[in-house]
Amino acid sequence: MKQIQGGVTAAKGFQAAGIEAAIKYQNRKDMALVYSEAPCVAAGTFTTNVVKAAPVLWDRKIVQESPYVQAVIANSGIANACTGKEGMDCCAAESKCAGELLGIPETSVLVASTGVIGMQIPVDRITEGIKKLAAAKADTPEAGTDAAKAIMTTDTVEKQIAVTFEISGKTVTLGGMCKGSGMIHPNMCTMLAFLTTDLNISKQMLQKALSADVEDSFNMISVDGDTSTNDTLLILANGLADNEAILEEGEDYDTFCQALRYVTTYLARKMAGDGEGATALFETKVIGAASKEDARMLAKSVICSSLTKAAIFGHDANWGRILCALGYSGAQFDPENVDLYFQSASGRIHIYGNGAACSYSEEEATKILSDPEVTVLVDMHMGEQEAVAWGCDLSYDYVKINADYRS
Amino acid sequence: MKQIQGGVTAAKGFQAAGIEAAIKYQNRKDMALVYSEAPCVAAGTFTTNVVKAAPVLWDRKIVQESPYVQAVIANSGIANACTGKEGMDCCAAESKCAGELLGIPETSVLVASTGVIGMQIPVDRITEGIKKLAAAKADTPEAGTDAAKAIMTTDTVEKQIAVTFEISGKTVTLGGMCKGSGMIHPNMCTMLAFLTTDLNISKQMLQKALSADVEDSFNMISVDGDTSTNDTLLILANGLADNEAILEEGEDYDTFCQALRYVTTYLARKMAGDGEGATALFETKVIGAASKEDARMLAKSVICSSLTKAAIFGHDANWGRILCALGYSGAQFDPENVDLYFQSASGRIHIYGNGAACSYSEEEATKILSDPEVTVLVDMHMGEQEAVAWGCDLSYDYVKINADYRS
Repeated sequence: MKQIQGGVTAAKGFQAAGIEAAIKYQNRKDMALVYSEAPCVAAGTFTTNVVKAAPVLWDRKIVQESPYVQAVIANSGIANACTGKEGMDCCAAESKCAGELLGIPETSVLVASTGVIGMQIPVDRITEGIKKLAAAKADTPEAGTDAAKAIMTTDTVEKQIAVTFEISGKTVTLGGMCKGSGMIHPNMCTMLAFLTTDLNISKQMLQKALSADVEDSFNMISVDGDTSTNDTLLILANGLADNEAILEEGEDYDTFCQALRYVTTYLARKMAGDGEGATALFETKVIGAASKEDARMLAKSVICSSLTKAAIFGHDANWGRILCALGYSGAQFDPENVDLYFQSASGRIHIYGNGAACSYSEEEATKILSDPEVTVLVDMHMGEQEAVAWGCDLSYDYVKINADYRS
Repeated sequence: MKQIQGGVTAAKGFQAAGIEAAIKYQNRKDMALVYSEAPCVAAGTFTTNVVKAAPVLWDRKIVQESPYVQAVIANSGIANACTGKEGMDCCAAESKCAGELLGIPETSVLVASTGVIGMQIPVDRITEGIKKLAAAKADTPEAGTDAAKAIMTTDTVEKQIAVTFEISGKTVTLGGMCKGSGMIHPNMCTMLAFLTTDLNISKQMLQKALSADVEDSFNMISVDGDTSTNDTLLILANGLADNEAILEEGEDYDTFCQALRYVTTYLARKMAGDGEGATALFETKVIGAASKEDARMLAKSVICSSLTKAAIFGHDANWGRILCALGYSGAQFDPENVDLYFQSASGRIHIYGNGAACSYSEEEATKILSDPEVTVLVDMHMGEQEAVAWGCDLSYDYVKINADYRS
């Protein structure tokens, strides 16, 4: 497997566009298109929040019922959540308009939105936007970047990646983009992430791979513990790589799952590190856990702790808060048997073991904690299971951004 | 029932003291004593965190095994958590010293600590402190206030209350004090709260009343979602009110439970409103829920949402975040049937109903949200069950306080 330049347009037959539609934001790209020249099988995972945005309800149905999908229309600025019948009508209007302009069945169109909850999307602006998207679509890396920029809200950078790998002697490409920032605590999927591949795979195996993957990628990140109403992860596979179709588990399926994990982990880490107000990516790796479930609970509990996140922001080696967060995670363990380490590009220090603080240099700890990527390594000494979770620090800017997000 | 002046010294036979022992803080009171002239039955609830501070392990044993208790020694500054055998030895030394100086069995002494995790308490300072406490103890309101001040950490005001009520023709007094601020997300009890009463009641009925009470009082508050290692709620009853002993459920028991709920709710609200960095008490009342459990989950989910708390800080009527938090609470419901209201001393407005935003004045909303106590009223229209939860807004100061708490 090899990482290459590009994102959603890297795989054969995929085009994209990002344009200005003034849905809510002015003078910036706020609508994106992902389009495949050939019909794709599609799989998706969606928010588990009881309050589901209209596009989530729409896409869930399309992914379940449509055999093929060929386009995704996404907008930022307005989430189309808590918008009742008018919100569903908007999804229908988007699909109809995109279907006509792209010359594909309207049941082949997925839609996605992110932004403020409760506002209605102006339908005339979104259909005007779709016209611009259809005219602008291209298979270039620049078009992929435009799309990745258009789905951003409070994100500070666009997030995309592409890789190639071999399946049955053919080169397959997998690319993706996502946006995150606030209201990030995915449960079964993430805010908005779109993956494209020219892999030849059955719809069933594609969904299986995606559903398994999110448990250790997007579901292991959190910015603020708030599970969004709009979480949507979609993958489109158009088969143009011409490999022997993947119809069951086996070596080819595993190769794809590995590439998928690489791509989703990359995007998930980017999303966590670019959380609202974040100055650092805060990773927690739990090893030696009794079960996989325990490992995940322990790792997520630490990256979700407000007190720990504030300490990371302050470059303060306050390991008591980490132990406290492990303690209320729901997993059972003996605190006397846990080892804690801080590590980063600057080094690694042992901070807690044998039931008490280790003797370490505060200066060295502060140096490690001042790096842009900080890891807490937790050894439970109870078994062989591991998990990694990703979050970010809690800064003044998180409060600033969210104290007045609507205006 | 009548609210009166005072706190832990209000009930007959109770004395208190608060003195400077320089455990970690300098030039402020940091040790407290609560003492009863007569032996008391005691009940307690303690943190459910797997990582339990030494005083929690110590007190749990005393409450279970000692028939009578007569004193509580508490310190602020150092939590005596994650301190191994040395921490337990410190609890033993405190109890022994207090037993000798107060002329009571050392098994009648409870201990409590709050502050930084992982540091050892200097035993010589704490025993010096106990000497000062024993000399200073008095049954005056001032002595109660001194004790309430001495247990504060990042709290900005001391928190105490007292009430009187009638049981079998006798006047009974119940008083209490607590401290909160950060790492507040009690599970089965709260940070540190001490209640004293001259009620005559069996130990068994006292524990029953306390355990039931916390479910709707201290367990319904959260400042930051972090369940502390030190959560301790203790109640001492010395029987000096001379009422006919409460040995079973009935009218007298109910009268006591009512007074207890009044006192614990008062203290819980004070703790939430004085959360680290808080500028407002943020209350969520859920009515019309299908079950009591649902009502509690829904109410707690809203007051724990970082995004909602930041919006309250910004006086922003961002009801989408509230609906989102209800949606990921774990309770099932139809978002179209929910009504949301904001209310405060300035009035009440209907903000969401029939699946969409109501038409309300943003100006009026901002006025309501600028009050020091803000309530979100949620009507689920699914049943008769209710719950109230208390939190606070998320401000720059929460980040400031916790980015560098140790120094």
